[in-house]
Amino acid sequence: MDLMKDFWNGSRRALARAITVVEDEREGFEDVMKDIYHHTGRAQVIGVTGAPGAGKSTLSDNLVKFYRKQGKKVGVVAVDPTSPFSGGAILGDRIRMNDLTLDQGVFIRSMGTRGSLGGLSRKTADAVKLMDAFGLDVILIETVGVGQSEVDIVKNADTTLVVLVPGLGDDIQAIKAGILEIGDVFCINKCDRDGADRLNIEIEMMLDLGESQDWRPPITRTVASEGQGVEDVIQALADHRKYLEESGQIEIRRRERVKDEMIDMIHDRISRRIMQKIISTGEFSGYVEQVYERKNDPFTVVDSIVENILK
Amino acid sequence: MDLMKDFWNGSRRALARAITVVEDEREGFEDVMKDIYHHTGRAQVIGVTGAPGAGKSTLSDNLVKFYRKQGKKVGVVAVDPTSPFSGGAILGDRIRMNDLTLDQGVFIRSMGTRGSLGGLSRKTADAVKLMDAFGLDVILIETVGVGQSEVDIVKNADTTLVVLVPGLGDDIQAIKAGILEIGDVFCINKCDRDGADRLNIEIEMMLDLGESQDWRPPITRTVASEGQGVEDVIQALADHRKYLEESGQIEIRRRERVKDEMIDMIHDRISRRIMQKIISTGEFSGYVEQVYERKNDPFTVVDSIVENILK
Repeated sequence: MDLMKDFWNGSRRALARAITVVEDEREGFEDVMKDIYHHTGRAQVIGVTGAPGAGKSTLSDNLVKFYRKQGKKVGVVAVDPTSPFSGGAILGDRIRMNDLTLDQGVFIRSMGTRGSLGGLSRKTADAVKLMDAFGLDVILIETVGVGQSEVDIVKNADTTLVVLVPGLGDDIQAIKAGILEIGDVFCINKCDRDGADRLNIEIEMMLDLGESQDWRPPITRTVASEGQGVEDVIQALADHRKYLEESGQIEIRRRERVKDEMIDMIHDRISRRIMQKIISTGEFSGYVEQVYERKNDPFTVVDSIVENILK
Repeated sequence: MDLMKDFWNGSRRALARAITVVEDEREGFEDVMKDIYHHTGRAQVIGVTGAPGAGKSTLSDNLVKFYRKQGKKVGVVAVDPTSPFSGGAILGDRIRMNDLTLDQGVFIRSMGTRGSLGGLSRKTADAVKLMDAFGLDVILIETVGVGQSEVDIVKNADTTLVVLVPGLGDDIQAIKAGILEIGDVFCINKCDRDGADRLNIEIEMMLDLGESQDWRPPITRTVASEGQGVEDVIQALADHRKYLEESGQIEIRRRERVKDEMIDMIHDRISRRIMQKIISTGEFSGYVEQVYERKNDPFTVVDSIVENILK
């Protein structure tokens, strides 16, 4: 394919097109993924998540600039799972209209929800693999908000950076409980605001409550809008990377990820095949009607459908 | 089962236990669901969603009190998909330590993520069905935050109330784009704050951009902490209910939901059976190793696994 020839020649446009081909599952997308698969596994993949308004994209931009100064090529996948109807991914493009887009060593891509969320996590993983095979050294996966879907998405990273901010409301504090447990590195952004010390103490307390691990997530502080403290974040991310490699955790995490991806793919393929079969018989709408009319309960009906298929 | 005898006798404890049995998929949970299924479809089910900090739970509490004054029995399912590791559902219980819990006509249940998100949406649906069969007249499904997972969860409601608040940051405005499209009724809470009028105009504009529909979502205004404007929300919810019934939309929505639930159940059952089969052969970890070592790509390996199973 011409596309892949250009891709291997380092054409950024070809990378962009390859991601689109895979994202939309256009013809030949599996060939693309098969082609690049053997060239993956080199990049440092970092997930960036945290509450809306925490300043994740400003911080990400700063990280990108820092890695660029180190001579590294950087990719960003900005993922927006909150926009299920509009096709999503408005945010990433809108925010990134800045000086970074002029830098040939930076590749930014935003992704939204089309179809299922599981789909979004998988497509993020695919985009990361494409960037990795393309030769980018560091890849940031940045989410818009925080929640289960974001957690699933950042699982595609080796290291997860959780960005928090002092002085948000109680609801947001509650949300934090969920993301604290996925953080490898923490960052208190807008740390010049009131409440930064208290937030620091709160995070420490929650970390104390968790199981004791070999790696204690460091808590860094930044004012990302002024570029302050970014170096510490970079250092903490590098430390975590080193820990992953020296402890062998990186192999464990990646092997686990391969397994999860394969299980997802198996589920997906089998589901598609089976749903085609069910819908092609034309009997399914009759079953739905039975249940809707409460002539029968869904469990009994589904059991008989499944038995029929698997026998 | 003694449990179900108590349930049908109106024991609130039996309702709570039945939900737990179903949530944890304890032995006999399918029998419980089969038993109650024919008694569902009576309650008015309302989803309440919106950005963190919008005051959803305060507003919900006010709605509950209002429905209680009308003599209706009310259920609340407070869903927290943001806490995947802690077993979730901290928030609901913590916030609800108030006068409502003393009212025998109110039943509050919080649910968090255990296992998959799809699981959470289904378990929410099951809890709603149990409350419905138990004889509660109005059931609120309240989410903690907003995102794809929350959207999936509120799909279990007939009417969705989207709660917004003036003057939040840009990230949160972006999130709104996603939830605007699921709102049947809007509520601008904390409407005494600056920016309420602008927010109102923004919502109107986004509604104008959408496809023209028979139902134009009304925009209500409240100061929930002072109980102000709650009556208008109640009225708008009742209007939407009436619209659903008179237009026949309620049947269309519910039939669609039955279909989606059945498809989910079929996927789920088939996946479980097939994963058991795959793992029981013991060959799967060998396949994972092949892919992890990049001796083979996941597409080729998964294809051969799937062919093997379905042949």
